Amino acid sequence: MRQSQLFTKTRREAPADEVSKNAILLIRAGFINKEMAGVYDFLPLGLRVLNKIIGIIREEMNSLGAQEIFMSSLQRKELWERTGRWSDDNVDAWFKTRLKDGAELGLAFTHEEPISNMLEQFVSSYKDLPFSVYQFQNKFRNETRAKSGIIRTREFLMKDLYSFNVDREAHQDFYEKAKESYKRIFNRVGIADKTYFTLASGGSFSAQSHEFQTVSDSGEDTIFITNEESKEAVNKEIENKRELGLKAVEVGNIFNLGTTFSDPFLKFKDENGEEHPVYMGSYGIGPARLMGTIVEVLSDEKGIIWPEEVAPFRVHLILLGGPTAKDTADEIYKTLQAEGVEVLYDDRDLRAGEKFADADLIGIPTRVIIGEKTMASKMLEVKERNSDEIRMLSIEHLIDELTK
Amino acid sequence: MRQSQLFTKTRREAPADEVSKNAILLIRAGFINKEMAGVYDFLPLGLRVLNKIIGIIREEMNSLGAQEIFMSSLQRKELWERTGRWSDDNVDAWFKTRLKDGAELGLAFTHEEPISNMLEQFVSSYKDLPFSVYQFQNKFRNETRAKSGIIRTREFLMKDLYSFNVDREAHQDFYEKAKESYKRIFNRVGIADKTYFTLASGGSFSAQSHEFQTVSDSGEDTIFITNEESKEAVNKEIENKRELGLKAVEVGNIFNLGTTFSDPFLKFKDENGEEHPVYMGSYGIGPARLMGTIVEVLSDEKGIIWPEEVAPFRVHLILLGGPTAKDTADEIYKTLQAEGVEVLYDDRDLRAGEKFADADLIGIPTRVIIGEKTMASKMLEVKERNSDEIRMLSIEHLIDELTK
Repeated sequence: MRQSQLFTKTRREAPADEVSKNAILLIRAGFINKEMAGVYDFLPLGLRVLNKIIGIIREEMNSLGAQEIFMSSLQRKELWERTGRWSDDNVDAWFKTRLKDGAELGLAFTHEEPISNMLEQFVSSYKDLPFSVYQFQNKFRNETRAKSGIIRTREFLMKDLYSFNVDREAHQDFYEKAKESYKRIFNRVGIADKTYFTLASGGSFSAQSHEFQTVSDSGEDTIFITNEESKEAVNKEIENKRELGLKAVEVGNIFNLGTTFSDPFLKFKDENGEEHPVYMGSYGIGPARLMGTIVEVLSDEKGIIWPEEVAPFRVHLILLGGPTAKDTADEIYKTLQAEGVEVLYDDRDLRAGEKFADADLIGIPTRVIIGEKTMASKMLEVKERNSDEIRMLSIEHLIDELTK
Repeated sequence: MRQSQLFTKTRREAPADEVSKNAILLIRAGFINKEMAGVYDFLPLGLRVLNKIIGIIREEMNSLGAQEIFMSSLQRKELWERTGRWSDDNVDAWFKTRLKDGAELGLAFTHEEPISNMLEQFVSSYKDLPFSVYQFQNKFRNETRAKSGIIRTREFLMKDLYSFNVDREAHQDFYEKAKESYKRIFNRVGIADKTYFTLASGGSFSAQSHEFQTVSDSGEDTIFITNEESKEAVNKEIENKRELGLKAVEVGNIFNLGTTFSDPFLKFKDENGEEHPVYMGSYGIGPARLMGTIVEVLSDEKGIIWPEEVAPFRVHLILLGGPTAKDTADEIYKTLQAEGVEVLYDDRDLRAGEKFADADLIGIPTRVIIGEKTMASKMLEVKERNSDEIRMLSIEHLIDELTK
């Protein structure tokens, strides 16, 4: 895409009330816009990153055999009263609203109750099990504190996966597979080396849970690493040790729910016709929270450093100089696009220093410069965002590198 | 996908309170689930159709040069007070809720105000214009009547496009292009021959608007066709003629907003440094409403008849008979998948009559049967959902037809 056509511009300053690093960088670089504390819009660059993260998660969910669905935000209170989670005494994060006739509705903060209720019509026999479903769906939580940028928001996209099995043993088997698929996701988005599989409490969901915690100063949790090699940790909330803990962001969680949320809604008959409750698990990842965490752990004083798999574009092509350089840059832009390389082409009429500052802030992995030096040598000046080294490459060599 | 693995099943009956044809068929066929009046979930088959419709619309929006964004549902009342649309006297469809500190929030029923407000930071000069942005975003409307299935819901996905131009003339040029792209969309989803470009009132948006109205008994609007050849009509709400009108569903609308919603938020400077308000248009299509309308106009007493471009699968492969037929069917399933043909493979242990009834209800365009007849002749029995003709084709011939 031509940067002159991109309707967003970089900014020197984020809004004065913004205190989180991820939001400050993402707002300054034009990825997101702040509507109010804890509520953000995704602008073209931000939506590109979000969709790449969603794409990675979707691939891993599909390879688990899970089927994608899309449920509603609006919730009838009757379903949630059956499990005790309608009451503000048990769940204090509800946004509630009303129909014209006065009937109270909730805005979903999770979906165990409606999904169990919905499945009652499809599950009656052991032959209908096991299976798993997932969705990418906007959830709402009435957070009192919302100071962590897109890591903790009042409205947020959530990937929630639900598994249904005949018993604990079958559940455990799927749980292990889901755990491995989560590890692959955190590896692909570039934060595996800072992410720990962490024993934690289960909040309104279960007695205990497992979280994936990414070490970062911006984290709201404190974890103790129990095994560095296997990347395991324990959350301070269940084991308050005296030793120094590490701040971490919860980037994923997996719950062994047992039959708590399924039992009030559905049963299955075994081979002998006897009824049993269904054994359930739920598994969450917030794609925008993940995006915010990537920014927290992969950035420097100049801006963001996107990993290749989630970067908004693969190459930032920067034109410096006059009309002849422009013709060459136009040609290289066309060639890269024809080769299927995603390029942001900075064709704007600005000074080199401004273009470089914007490129560092936006954080596209590979920068390619077309200027006088390039014109003379017929080579491209190539620099990676995470390195100071400048290399001179032919266009063929660059394309080879990018498409290998 | 193997139908035995699909977690949904067809149903004989829809919920007793469901009166709309589209919802009855879509619920019975396992495409959607009803949470409450006017609120539905999309199950795997339904989400596949919805995503195909979204894909078609996205292609057309991108070819207009519009940039995709994703804005929040939660809305600050201050922005809407500036245009007078916060008041329930002017807009009676708000769902409202509150933050913990008591501050009132709205759930977006459209996005003119927040988008104009957001753009104030990016638009200051005539050089920043023109441009257009769009999103696929869940909107909320507190409907008193919600009896039209997924055609009128309280929570619904909306494609909303917004255009920004320097003046009326530049706006009109884009408006005409957007109109043509809408016609292409309705053509691609298979309802062009029943869809009319209709002059209508503009509600809380503008004095007049243009709607795309699809003739259907289930429609809530009445239109008078003014030109059958050019597919033009006028809505009864602005021209209450005596003659007989046709019932129709509004599948799209385009608004010339002028400067009503931009003026309170943003201005641009012309070449001489003089300030002007920005000229704005908005253009809506509800992908789920479109899906419901397709079902209303393309179905028969047996079930749905999906057009190819939006069908959940291209081929319904139906296995009849024993283990040898199963091996052949498994092989053909693999071959079709390898050729990139989307197949739902009915490998379930059911009687032929039940399988055919389900296939008619689900409505996949091409049915391929593997049974005794097929085994003997090495040919496939092929029937289109919208025809009674049965043809015998080789697998190569079928693939040729499907991929041509």
